[in-house]
Amino acid sequence: MLNTVFYTSLSHFVDVWPSVPWTVATTPPSDYGSWVLIGVLLSLVTIYLASKLGGELSKRVSLPPVLGELVGGVVVGISVLHLVMFPENTAAATDAILMRALQGLGHLDDTALMHIFQSQSEVISVLAELGVIVLLFEIGLESDLRELGKVGYQAAIVAVVGVVAPFALGTVGLVSLFHVPLIPAVFAGAALTATSIGITSKVLSDLGQLKSTEGQIIVGAAVIDDVLGIIVLAVVASLAKTGEVDLLNLIYLIVGASAFLIGSILLGKFFNHSFVTIANKLQTRGALLIPALTFALVMAFLASVIHLEAILGAFAAGLVLDETDKRKELDQQVMPVADILVPIFFVTVGAKADLSVLNPVVAENRAGLVIATFLIGVAIIGKLVTGWAVWGKPEINRLAIGVGMIPRGEVGLVFAGIGTASGVLDRPLEAAIIVMVIITTFLAPPLLQFVMRERPATEVITTSETLSTVE
Amino acid sequence: MLNTVFYTSLSHFVDVWPSVPWTVATTPPSDYGSWVLIGVLLSLVTIYLASKLGGELSKRVSLPPVLGELVGGVVVGISVLHLVMFPENTAAATDAILMRALQGLGHLDDTALMHIFQSQSEVISVLAELGVIVLLFEIGLESDLRELGKVGYQAAIVAVVGVVAPFALGTVGLVSLFHVPLIPAVFAGAALTATSIGITSKVLSDLGQLKSTEGQIIVGAAVIDDVLGIIVLAVVASLAKTGEVDLLNLIYLIVGASAFLIGSILLGKFFNHSFVTIANKLQTRGALLIPALTFALVMAFLASVIHLEAILGAFAAGLVLDETDKRKELDQQVMPVADILVPIFFVTVGAKADLSVLNPVVAENRAGLVIATFLIGVAIIGKLVTGWAVWGKPEINRLAIGVGMIPRGEVGLVFAGIGTASGVLDRPLEAAIIVMVIITTFLAPPLLQFVMRERPATEVITTSETLSTVE
Repeated sequence: MLNTVFYTSLSHFVDVWPSVPWTVATTPPSDYGSWVLIGVLLSLVTIYLASKLGGELSKRVSLPPVLGELVGGVVVGISVLHLVMFPENTAAATDAILMRALQGLGHLDDTALMHIFQSQSEVISVLAELGVIVLLFEIGLESDLRELGKVGYQAAIVAVVGVVAPFALGTVGLVSLFHVPLIPAVFAGAALTATSIGITSKVLSDLGQLKSTEGQIIVGAAVIDDVLGIIVLAVVASLAKTGEVDLLNLIYLIVGASAFLIGSILLGKFFNHSFVTIANKLQTRGALLIPALTFALVMAFLASVIHLEAILGAFAAGLVLDETDKRKELDQQVMPVADILVPIFFVTVGAKADLSVLNPVVAENRAGLVIATFLIGVAIIGKLVTGWAVWGKPEINRLAIGVGMIPRGEVGLVFAGIGTASGVLDRPLEAAIIVMVIITTFLAPPLLQFVMRERPATEVITTSETLSTVE
Repeated sequence: MLNTVFYTSLSHFVDVWPSVPWTVATTPPSDYGSWVLIGVLLSLVTIYLASKLGGELSKRVSLPPVLGELVGGVVVGISVLHLVMFPENTAAATDAILMRALQGLGHLDDTALMHIFQSQSEVISVLAELGVIVLLFEIGLESDLRELGKVGYQAAIVAVVGVVAPFALGTVGLVSLFHVPLIPAVFAGAALTATSIGITSKVLSDLGQLKSTEGQIIVGAAVIDDVLGIIVLAVVASLAKTGEVDLLNLIYLIVGASAFLIGSILLGKFFNHSFVTIANKLQTRGALLIPALTFALVMAFLASVIHLEAILGAFAAGLVLDETDKRKELDQQVMPVADILVPIFFVTVGAKADLSVLNPVVAENRAGLVIATFLIGVAIIGKLVTGWAVWGKPEINRLAIGVGMIPRGEVGLVFAGIGTASGVLDRPLEAAIIVMVIITTFLAPPLLQFVMRERPATEVITTSETLSTVE
């Protein structure tokens, strides 16, 4: 079948055929494909409306647009309107309002609806992942390898302090103040370590501060942080599982991560020339964009395969291509692609955040909320101190660096998820970690904007700023 | 869980937890998500390589790039390399080489692999659908509603002749020459009617001929053709099912389709002003692109829901927004999005085309190939005559119009699929329809380029041409 979706979209009204082999259920499975597409269209429309409404309102009250997109996601997601839902949040497809609309429109039975719900959610999730991949590729393109190299040591020290401080404070505090046993305390402490690079870099980019010294230190530190976070997770997970650390796995991870990052930088030295040569030779549409995107996807793939994050690969690809003289042209072409994919990521993050754990009226939330308050304090203080770990830059905005490292985003939730699945974390502690992640994620954008405004931007305005001014 | 894919990508190396509830299989389902993303990344890289290699080679030998993309798809698809495969083409996930690579990389068990194969195929299929939606949106933006109105009558007559001629020739020929019973003959005749708008409009756009009178007649006729094809299908399907025509359904379809097309044109008269007002008020990134794309997705959704094709909605949206003074800016921003999504559609079409039905060494293919030769003849002649149905335009390239209507693409396969599923078509006739679709699809691009070159383009060069010259 060349084009199944078309085929199935036509077969809607053909109804049930007398001798069709696949008509066991009321809705034939061959119809699923077209309803998956219709579901995706509906979800995307909802996501774009939420992102634009949220982003614009946020901008109007002088907050970063990304905060509005996150809040827009919360409004259409599991916490409020139940429009954009995901199977991991809910038991039944009919809890999702958009799915109920589809059911009404297509007279779909429950089996069909569940299948369509899962498939369309999978598509939206992958689109969101592609969104954050393209975002980090763009951030890489906007970052400068030499500038990043100049602040490399500062970034590394910021990252290390930002991992050690909240981990130590969190673990010790949980054991001494809340009498949490050591293993869960270590787990929760580890959940406090890794910075969410997506949120921070988007805010910096929106503020036109990505290329400031502070911005480059934050992005560099967030990248190193992500790698450290993965290593910390491996250590803590194997500790929780067997009571000891799997040294071989640890060495593999450290060697793999280092080889990948150093390898990409070395690659950058000579690959950028071959890239320009290839792009110059192509004559069909997308002559520059497709090779560049393919390179980013290959790097994202390689990073995933060696157990790093896909987004680190995309960031490395952006850094490499930033060295070419095609940079500006490429930047301009990547922008519309980022414009349509990135909002899917942020709205999805908001839509998946279940704010019901924040409700103090529910008795079982209260224990978690008390621990959460402590964790939020540690999460903020543990990262704020990193600004004062920077040396040799007396002029630097230390507060901005600390604040830039605050959002935990997805990474903290990874810890919560694995911790709960493994039985290490009890319900209050898990809820506390989730609350900590939500609060730091939503708090960081306005805070960062506030502390960045303390000192006006002195550096070149980024492409995104230029364009939005032109518009 | 805010970010499941990240969560699962980390949990790779955490292996099986002692008390994890979801570790029934060797590969925990929570791992699926990250492998779906990895599978999508691999498939996209393969698709982009195939599209660029095919497109560039095609261009080098002076053939339309889209032909190269289709052939590139054939090479990586079911017919040759088995890299990009789809569940509807194959029984086992391990037939797909990329999936086997994933299995090796992730030590995935067969249940996991099948799930990942299906999910990643679903994502690629939806991306391909979004690709053709964006393509038709772009074609709509490049078309001019007034120009299209001027050739409206010509387009309508071309469409009607192009439906009646191949249908009559095909049905009568099959009954009288091949002694096919009436119902299957009617079905095969109907399969000869609808033109594939995607292929033709892409070739016209690549040739910079979209805005020529011929180009506008072809696009207009192809749109009307698509609507007629859907009506023909409804008639034939209900004929095959009950022996009579479901008049109510037929009236519903005709009224719905007409209301939709006329409604969109009327909408265009006043919506374009409100659109510009909205876009001008937005201050965040994607201020123009996101509202435009959202509008296209809404129209695609509406078209799907009233049983038209999603791409007709996207085309109508493009036509409406073409009327605004934002047209040029929007065109420029839609281009990179089309550049990355459209190749997925064409490569996927090629990848899904199973050329094994063309092999005359296989005995059971031969009966089909004889009928196919007849059908291909009718398919070509039945559309070629449409050029001579145009009146009042003595200067027109009549051959080009006829050739532009030749590709059947997806629509013919819809008929083959439904016909086989309903038991109306036997295997040789089904194979013949598939062969006819493949040959007309692959033949049309080079033929169209050839007959279009007979008379050099006199009109304005389109944006895509301008850009590729600049590059």
